[in-house]
Amino acid sequence: MAIQFELIKTCKQSGARLGRLHTPHGVIDTPIFMPVGTQATVKAMTPEELEDMEAQIILSNTYHLFLRPGHELVEKAGGLHKFMNWKHPILTDSGGFQVFSLGDLRKITEEGVEFRSHLDGAKHFLSPERAIEIENALGADIIMAFDECAPYPADKEYVKKSLERTTRWAARCKAAHKKPEQQALFGIVQGGMYPDLRKQSAEEITEIGFPGYAIGGLSVGEPKPMMYEVLEQTIPYLPEDKPRYLMGVGSPDDLLEGVLRGVDMFDCVLPTRIARNGTAMTSVGKVVIKNAKHFDDFTPLDPNCDCYTCRNYTKAYLRHLYKADEILSSRLMSYHNLYFLIELMKNVRKAIMEDRLLDFKDEFFEKYGYTVKESE
Amino acid sequence: MAIQFELIKTCKQSGARLGRLHTPHGVIDTPIFMPVGTQATVKAMTPEELEDMEAQIILSNTYHLFLRPGHELVEKAGGLHKFMNWKHPILTDSGGFQVFSLGDLRKITEEGVEFRSHLDGAKHFLSPERAIEIENALGADIIMAFDECAPYPADKEYVKKSLERTTRWAARCKAAHKKPEQQALFGIVQGGMYPDLRKQSAEEITEIGFPGYAIGGLSVGEPKPMMYEVLEQTIPYLPEDKPRYLMGVGSPDDLLEGVLRGVDMFDCVLPTRIARNGTAMTSVGKVVIKNAKHFDDFTPLDPNCDCYTCRNYTKAYLRHLYKADEILSSRLMSYHNLYFLIELMKNVRKAIMEDRLLDFKDEFFEKYGYTVKESE
Repeated sequence: MAIQFELIKTCKQSGARLGRLHTPHGVIDTPIFMPVGTQATVKAMTPEELEDMEAQIILSNTYHLFLRPGHELVEKAGGLHKFMNWKHPILTDSGGFQVFSLGDLRKITEEGVEFRSHLDGAKHFLSPERAIEIENALGADIIMAFDECAPYPADKEYVKKSLERTTRWAARCKAAHKKPEQQALFGIVQGGMYPDLRKQSAEEITEIGFPGYAIGGLSVGEPKPMMYEVLEQTIPYLPEDKPRYLMGVGSPDDLLEGVLRGVDMFDCVLPTRIARNGTAMTSVGKVVIKNAKHFDDFTPLDPNCDCYTCRNYTKAYLRHLYKADEILSSRLMSYHNLYFLIELMKNVRKAIMEDRLLDFKDEFFEKYGYTVKESE
Repeated sequence: MAIQFELIKTCKQSGARLGRLHTPHGVIDTPIFMPVGTQATVKAMTPEELEDMEAQIILSNTYHLFLRPGHELVEKAGGLHKFMNWKHPILTDSGGFQVFSLGDLRKITEEGVEFRSHLDGAKHFLSPERAIEIENALGADIIMAFDECAPYPADKEYVKKSLERTTRWAARCKAAHKKPEQQALFGIVQGGMYPDLRKQSAEEITEIGFPGYAIGGLSVGEPKPMMYEVLEQTIPYLPEDKPRYLMGVGSPDDLLEGVLRGVDMFDCVLPTRIARNGTAMTSVGKVVIKNAKHFDDFTPLDPNCDCYTCRNYTKAYLRHLYKADEILSSRLMSYHNLYFLIELMKNVRKAIMEDRLLDFKDEFFEKYGYTVKESE
């Protein structure tokens, strides 16, 4: 087995889990937030900066690397870790989410998905076998099954057919996986916003059996309370002794709510994307750096943050960099936002250890007082 | 006096100078290359990275900072050093070069230059007094006089009138300078490509008297041999005991040829600009990273370089980053190019110390074998 999940304790106040996941490239503490390095780089960051902020695992995207530079090149380079100079654990998704997001550019059959590249329009085909072949070549510590992420809203009939195909595809992924000793293949639970379908999917996927399970198809446009409800309806059907990964979720409030419902792993482009657009997540709320009020504000982005950006730069300077379209703006803002989420998860783990995650949540929201949406 | 120039020795083989320039923010070794931080940031770099590569002094642009964020804000921040978090020496130009480059957007009179901002078209006025007022507010260790940089080609009559006005403006700059104990004001010699006008300008500017002298109006489109000739015709008229700064010059060959003719300081956007466009300066010649031949080249950019980029990344990865339009591409390429020029100047100083700069030049060009043009 490529990974071992160690459940350390459960928060007496909230029921949230504290764990440790042993992977071929090191141990990670859960619950954890994973920065996203779509194209074999976490945008604007170096590996050393990610180490400095104590990122333990990053995610990279199979769809993007398959198209450019191609998984054969990454394999020839010695795998993704070596190619991008990241010595710690990596998780790759399967490309499923991206190809389904292509809309008119893709055609789904039982065999797989035919699609056109968003880069040059060239025709490609991804199937469970092909996705796993690519993920085997990339060599991440954790790889994801090729699934279909149903859109929201979607009618029940469609979602049921889709989750059942996802189950068949999951079995094909498991059969196609050539490196189970080096790479842990996670199954993905789908089922849209329908509790009975979530139950069906969870039972089918866990029946196949994987070293870890993801909850897919959330944070796709549904209201937040609905996402939390679906989580509550899904997680009871997942085994206690395996890690649970909520895909594509990364706003501070969603991280907290997810952990409280038993999630161990999260990823999202949110912190780096909004950073490049000039928005910071801080302990006292959102900071939109271009706002005129920051023009001559010589205080740091976040008064309670010890990150490189907050230790060295003022809001006035950060606003100047953003307005002047300087690369350093993306660097400093991205560093801060990633640090903020990593620090948040450190504090979450500490609160679980101290059996006070509900108190921590209240304290956090009292200061924080807003939610961050993907659209920002 | 804000600065002290210490002439350490002259290369017995070449006549090139080795010096030390004491400034309010530290000592710099000459000959030196100064990275350019136009908008209060050396593009894509942090101050710590510049320290790591042993940059000793950087340049920033008065025109840009005057327009955005405004020199009053920088002054309120505690000056440019504090605003941008750079603890070492800074040199600011006067904005003259930029406003003259605006073409139809500016109007020159004896009083100064009226121009329209390239950002929003707003009307502004720069004069010797105004430029110095702005530079005083920015607070660089070395500030430049407000001059007119004549275009190339330009007829002699025009260049003569222009240099004579530059002389009058230099005197006005000196009179307007409010902080001679904290900031050293350099005079600028103009005169186009005409030897007698260069002599006239050098005599007039040195007659006014400054703690350092710049040679302006070169690298403006003339052939390289012509630039070297003008340097030879100008430098004999500059005092031995003051630093000499060749403005806007930064290709490896020009640095060497400049040092051989007695220049102590250089600046140029070239290394960072071509880096963002995917071109590296290396010890074995130019590397255009997007070229297909680098697709699966797992060797570093430069086989003889110890910089962060060359120690950690392959050409294959750098090509991928460039093609994928990733910020890390600009970061890694900029780091390498700046390191390369700083390392080159370190080796130049060593060769002067060892009285073998002509040998060093031959060795360098044998490996290097090309010149880098601004247009790349």
